[in-house]
Formats: sequence, C-alpha cells, structure tokens
Amino acid sequence: MSKKELTQGITAKKSDDFSEWYTQIIQKAELIEYTDVSGCLVFRPYSYQIWEKIQEFMNTIMKGMGVRNAYFPLLIPEKLLIKEADHVEGFTPEVAWVTHSGDTELKEKLAVRPTSETIMYESYKKWIRSHRDLPLLINQWCNIVRWEFKNPVPFLRTREFLWQEGHNVFATKSEMDTNTRLILESLYEKTQRELLAIPGLLGIKSEKEKFAGADYSISIENYFPSGRAIQGCTSHGLGQNFSKAFDITYIDENEKKQFAWQNSWGFSTRTIGIMIGVHSDDKGLVLPPNVAPTQIVIVPILFEKTKSETLKKCDEIKKMLKGYDVIIDDRDEYKPGYKFNDWELKGVPLRIEVGPKDIEKKQVVMSKRNTGEKVFVKEKDIKKTADKLLVDIQKELLVAAEKQLKNAIVKTESWSDFKKAIKNKKIVFSPWCEDSECEELIKHETGGAKTLNMPFDQKTLKNKKCPKCSKEAKVMCYFGKSY
Amino acid sequence: MSKKELTQGITAKKSDDFSEWYTQIIQKAELIEYTDVSGCLVFRPYSYQIWEKIQEFMNTIMKGMGVRNAYFPLLIPEKLLIKEADHVEGFTPEVAWVTHSGDTELKEKLAVRPTSETIMYESYKKWIRSHRDLPLLINQWCNIVRWEFKNPVPFLRTREFLWQEGHNVFATKSEMDTNTRLILESLYEKTQRELLAIPGLLGIKSEKEKFAGADYSISIENYFPSGRAIQGCTSHGLGQNFSKAFDITYIDENEKKQFAWQNSWGFSTRTIGIMIGVHSDDKGLVLPPNVAPTQIVIVPILFEKTKSETLKKCDEIKKMLKGYDVIIDDRDEYKPGYKFNDWELKGVPLRIEVGPKDIEKKQVVMSKRNTGEKVFVKEKDIKKTADKLLVDIQKELLVAAEKQLKNAIVKTESWSDFKKAIKNKKIVFSPWCEDSECEELIKHETGGAKTLNMPFDQKTLKNKKCPKCSKEAKVMCYFGKSY
Repeated sequence: MSKKELTQGITAKKSDDFSEWYTQIIQKAELIEYTDVSGCLVFRPYSYQIWEKIQEFMNTIMKGMGVRNAYFPLLIPEKLLIKEADHVEGFTPEVAWVTHSGDTELKEKLAVRPTSETIMYESYKKWIRSHRDLPLLINQWCNIVRWEFKNPVPFLRTREFLWQEGHNVFATKSEMDTNTRLILESLYEKTQRELLAIPGLLGIKSEKEKFAGADYSISIENYFPSGRAIQGCTSHGLGQNFSKAFDITYIDENEKKQFAWQNSWGFSTRTIGIMIGVHSDDKGLVLPPNVAPTQIVIVPILFEKTKSETLKKCDEIKKMLKGYDVIIDDRDEYKPGYKFNDWELKGVPLRIEVGPKDIEKKQVVMSKRNTGEKVFVKEKDIKKTADKLLVDIQKELLVAAEKQLKNAIVKTESWSDFKKAIKNKKIVFSPWCEDSECEELIKHETGGAKTLNMPFDQKTLKNKKCPKCSKEAKVMCYFGKSY
Repeated sequence: MSKKELTQGITAKKSDDFSEWYTQIIQKAELIEYTDVSGCLVFRPYSYQIWEKIQEFMNTIMKGMGVRNAYFPLLIPEKLLIKEADHVEGFTPEVAWVTHSGDTELKEKLAVRPTSETIMYESYKKWIRSHRDLPLLINQWCNIVRWEFKNPVPFLRTREFLWQEGHNVFATKSEMDTNTRLILESLYEKTQRELLAIPGLLGIKSEKEKFAGADYSISIENYFPSGRAIQGCTSHGLGQNFSKAFDITYIDENEKKQFAWQNSWGFSTRTIGIMIGVHSDDKGLVLPPNVAPTQIVIVPILFEKTKSETLKKCDEIKKMLKGYDVIIDDRDEYKPGYKFNDWELKGVPLRIEVGPKDIEKKQVVMSKRNTGEKVFVKEKDIKKTADKLLVDIQKELLVAAEKQLKNAIVKTESWSDFKKAIKNKKIVFSPWCEDSECEELIKHETGGAKTLNMPFDQKTLKNKKCPKCSKEAKVMCYFGKSY
C-alpha cells in the first residue's frame, strides 16, 4: 500500500455505515494506529497535537482557578485501592495487575491506575493539617488503564487512555458542591463548546450510574452521531467517603478536628472522538479552527512557467497570516485536486488557492472546509477575511452540532414512544420515578438504554408519571444507549 | 507535625552529610512525597512545575527541528519486547509485568514500558514506505517503569520516572549520525546549560555501557556533589539493528528497498535531581531563574499602622514586574524573618523587601538567593534591576557549577593516582585501552568506577598507556562512580 493509496478519500458514508466511516476517518486522517494489544492505540502526531491544544486551553483555565499540576505514581498497591469499599467494587474487575518484576513475583500486586483517588489521598493525608492548608487544588495529566471487555472503539472506549484528573479538597460541603459544579460548567463545558464546538447535556447522574465511591456525580452527556449518547466528562462530589477511609482531616478555626470534603473530576481523550464524530463528513475530518493543529492550508496552482512566482506569492500570504498555523502544500508529485481532497480529509478549516490568474487579479480563492463555500478575496483583505471566516467556521460548527443534538432528543411521557425513540437511536427526555429497579427494567426492555443524567434545573413536575412504572415521577431525566 | 515545623530549615549540611541534606531538601521544599511503593514517588506541584518548564523549553527546540509529539501505548506485548536480542537482554530483568486483568490471567503478559523502541517501531513499519516518508521525527512525553533493585534515590534513580523519548528514522547512516549528535548538543546540552545552568561532559559511551540494542550511545555525564558522576541524558545511534528486527524499510529514489537508519534519545526527570544537587546550599533549594516556578517573592515588612500602604506598594511593584512569576507573601501569621527562610528554602531566585522606611525613601531591598547579596534599589529602577539581577543569577549559577565540575575532575596517567582520585569522590580523566576486560578490572579494583564517556574530540595520543593494564591507550576517557 503506497502513501498515495493510504490518503485517498473515505469510501464509506457517514449516514450509511457510521462505524466503517469512523474507522476509515481515524486511520486515513492519520489520527490513530492500531497495535497488537486490543484497545491500546497509538495517538499519532495529528491527534496528539489536538490533545496538546486541549491541555493548553484547560491548563489556562485551571491556573486561573488556582489548580496546580502534579504527578502521582502509576502503580497502586492493592491495600490502598481497597480502602474505600464502593470504589474497589467499581474498579477492581477491570484493573490490570502488575504481579512480577523480571522473573520475581512481587510481594504485593500493584494496580495500574484505573483512576488515582487512592494513591493521591494517601499523600493528601500527610499534607493537610490545618484549615489554612485548604482548599487543596491539584490536577494531573496522565495515562489510565481500564481493562474493559466491551468492544473497544478508538478514542471513545479504549483500555488505555489519556486524561486529566483533578482532586480538590475543601473544608466544607458547600465549598465542595460549588466547586464540583464550577468544574463542570467553567472548565468542561467551556472547553467543549468554545474549543471543540460541542454542545452537551449537563446534569446529575443517577445513583446507579454515579462514580464508585462518590456521594454524587454530575456529567456532560454528548450525542455521538452513530446514534448513541456518550458520557463526555464527569465531576464527582465525593463527600467525606474518601476522607474517612484515608483519614484526611484538618484542624478548623476552633481547634477542632474535621474530616475534609473532596471532589474529583476527569476529562479524557474520549472527547477527541466525540468531536470527530460530531463534525466530520463524507469527505473526512472537520476540525474547529480553535483546536485544529493547522488552521489554514495554502495550495499553489503550479505551472512550469509561473511556479517560482506562485510559490513566492504563497510565502507572502503565509507571512500575512501570522498567529495561525499555516502550511503551504508545495509537493511536486501531486495535482491540486488531489491536494484539495487530502486536506479536506485532514479537516483543515480553511484552504487558500493561489494560481497565476489569481495573482494577476491580485486575489485568492478561500474555501471553507465545513460548508465547501468558496469566496474570492482581494489580496489586501486576506488577513481580515481569514480572521472572519475562521471565527464563522467555529460558530457554524457549534450551531450545527446544537441542531444535531436537539434533533436527537425526543421528549415523551409515553412508554411506547420511549421504546420507539430508543430504537430509532434517539436520546429520550422523560419524567422518571428515580427508582433503581425501574431504571434496570427500562434498560432491559429497551435493549440497553441507561439513564444519562438529570438536568440541574428541574421544573416542578405536576401529575407527571414515570412512563415505565407509572408511579409518580420525581425528575425529568435523559435516557439513551450509551458507550 | 504542623505546617510550621515542616517548613523549618534544613538541619543537615551539604558538605557533612550530603545524603541527609538532599533528602531534607526535596521534602521540605515540597518537591517530592514518598509512597508505600519503594522507588515510586509523587512529583508535588513545585517539582512538576519545573518539569513543565523543561517540557516547554524542549518542545520549542524540538518543534524547530521538525519533531512532532505523539503517544504510544504503555503496555508492550512480550513478543514485541523480545524482537531485538540485545535490547531484550538489557531490559527484561527490570520489567514490571502485567499478567492479570481483574481475576483473569492474560494470554500474553504485557510489559509496562521500560522504553518504547519496540512498541513504536511496530507502527513505524506501517508508516514508512518511501524515501519521501523520511525523515520521520517523533517524540513522546511519558512515564517509564524500570523495576531496579538498587537503592532508589529521588529524581536520580526511581522505579517510575517521567521523560521524553525521541525516535527518529533516516534514509542514511550519515543523517542518523548527524542527528544523534545534534540532539545531544542542540537540544540536551542547550537545555541543561541555558535553562538549568548545569554543565556536563559530552562524549561516547563504551561498548559495555552503551544502550542495549544500539550501535553506539553518546551521553552527557554530569557531576553530582555527593561525589558521584551521573549519566544526565543519552542519544543512541541504533544503526539498522531495530529496522532489521522490525522490518522498517523504504523504497529509495532508485526504486530499491533499503533498511532505515534510526536513533533514539531520552531526557528524564533525573535532571531535576541533578540541578537540585548542583546548585542548592545549606539554606535549601537554589533554582536558576529560567526554570524557577516563581522568580521573585515580595516580602512586605508589616506594621499595624502602615500595613495597607505597604501592601499597596507591593501590588504596584508586582505590576512593574510583568513577565515574571511573582508572589507577594502577605501571610499574617509569620514574621518577615520566617518568610525569608521559607523562600530561601524554596529557592526563589530574587527577594524584594518592602517596608515603610523603604517606601519613604522610595526604594526597596533586593536580595539574591544564590549569593545572599543585598542591594538597595530606587523604585524607578526596580524592573531594570530585577532584569539584570536575574540574568546575573542565571549566569553565576552556571559559572559556579562549571567550577564545581572542573574541580571534580582529576587528569592522571598513574594507576595509584587514579584509585586515590576515585576514593576521593573525583571523576578521573585518563588514557584508556578501550578493552572491556580492562574496564571490568578497573571497576572491580576501584570499588565501582565505570567508564562515563569518551570526549568527541580526541587529541592524538602519543605514547600514552592505559594506567590499569599498561597497554597502549586508544582514547582519553572519563571514569567515575556513577548512579
């Protein structure tokens, strides 16, 4: 297989065979490479650059919040992992265990971190003495291993993934609650919307679906155009569950010993997959300008006679576009049409074509990746127009994604409509009794629809019934099949 | 133990009990926390911020070299790890093996990466087809596990550490050689000298000490003031050893299939430890301004009557110092003297004292952490003087470290002087026969002195003999006990 064959277009259609389409995009746009270990994938430079942009964006927000980055060990002794009862129950089935070093069996087996509460809080215990040491706000960027046996889907569900996990400690419950929500809204929703142009549904997870060891979890649920929901990111109010298990206490202003209040929160490379699925099309990847590694590609239309003049003009134009990552595709071996396809496949938001006739007319052609729209732009207006078009593209992608999400939601109070909607790959928004047994029945009878979350702002429900059990509904809740 | 006790000064002297001094510094300056797993340590925010500064500095240089960041899986199947014979022999004794997921035994055990050649090159094989795909220049920042049984030393030798590993592929040997050397000089030496103010000895490792699987290794060897040498970082010319084991080939311009030439190169959190050891003193940490998380601390001298005025002045001064990370230590509970000690312990390069008398005189006191030197500075000159002092400190630290290194080296051709020097915790620079058996004897008879490396520029050796075996010397070589 030559390079040329590799980078030819996507042969599957998003609307016909989403799964094949997604698999082709992530490989042909050079985002992912598979390895011999199922569920462990390579983040190629093009996807890793996207992750670096996410890190940069989130680091800036976190720094403003007073959160500091640190790094805790990968390997967690079994005795720490099992300290919090619910936590261990939730995580041990999918823990990868290190049992040997070289040929020697270890005295105690070590978990490859499936999440870092336990290893971090063992240190927190030593660092927190007084109310003056609070709040303690620490984040780490790291790799995580969860040896799931469900079918892996690149980015969305992999056995190893990259994430940030924040672990904050407070003196009071109300500070914890406020911060848990702040993380979801001011860090996660902001990153999803402003950087990645993805809308989501914010709310509280059910008791059954909350994080193992938390008092409650709140989440952003996203829609993936395969027809499933997906938990985008979460923020967990841990209450005092871990502070009691790990003896994290502080002396308050009245010299009394108190258990601390904690939260933990995570955002992973999963979101890259969501972004790919939401925006991309049959031509390939579509990247929001704010997160695209390359915002603008300049494709010269090369003829033997005018080649050097055309390339010189491309250099001039690149210089005008300071502040953007710009590539000039001056490859000799490919025709412009091939290059157009290639950069469309790679999702570069804006293309500028420069040919000898354009140079004569002191103009260029700009083409928007998301809409295919082409405009002639006078040379003197290049920077201004590029600025505007890139802002437009970013906005348009969010608007389109919002429409997509809205269209995916069916609001109903009827059980037959509920089931039909799930079958039609929709998210259902419905009244619910909040009963865990009913939740289990709904899942069973719909072939797997779970509660996603319950919006924070619940309007008073008058005479609403749970469509499944017909008992009085307590909340409005989103349901759907989910990754 | 209260916060106050924790942050009191270092009680050991660097010259008397280096090991205790080092252990106290890394804990009291809040750089490291120990965990229950020997050799697996927490990088607390203060040391992780230093690592982030190193990453930023190196990323900029690498980007300029055309190197792109990526991320490859943590877990390497045994069958990949054993593909290159020398490589497996070097690394398997210290590999941490994942053998189980949950309660289930895996069909094939997985190595927690001790280095990533094998997992990366399995992908490289798929990506490289034509000479047009070369050079391929890829780096990853990641965690590494090597289950060594030597006594762990924080930063210097730990079972888990953080590093970057670069893996480049070229069409020809000469490109590989040039790049392998370029990495050592333009990336590693530059980072050590310009960012961390550490000098080092550049050269070629002996056959015995080279990387397992490489044709040759080149290194920077540093001096650690405990009286030992330490390999700071390495760049390995892998030749075609891995390309042949992993079938990494390309079609050249004459349509012929060729095996590629590769190098790999790594720089780790070890260097943070070297920096701490080299610069710090009996008062605590000393950080070079270019890598210090906080460059300047402003300590107000607070009296009840003038408090608000003094704090206002501190804010004004902070605003003048744009571009620096500045902290105003306005803690009420501590006296200025305590704060001075505290920030000296933390190694902040420049302290500014602001008291009511200074304000009257429109001046401040600036104090350099490295020398203790104090100067009165007129308010209007604050920015200019701070700029100058910080540049001075950076330079002075490098000059002092160069002197330290120079004083640690004994050049000799006599075997008795050689042994005496090693006993006196020196690095020996001596002629050498390059014989591996002789190398082993030297190690044995000196209680552990290894070859460090051999400088690139070797002057012609006339009638020089190897001090150990008295055979004709082929090279000048550095020897020393090493971490």
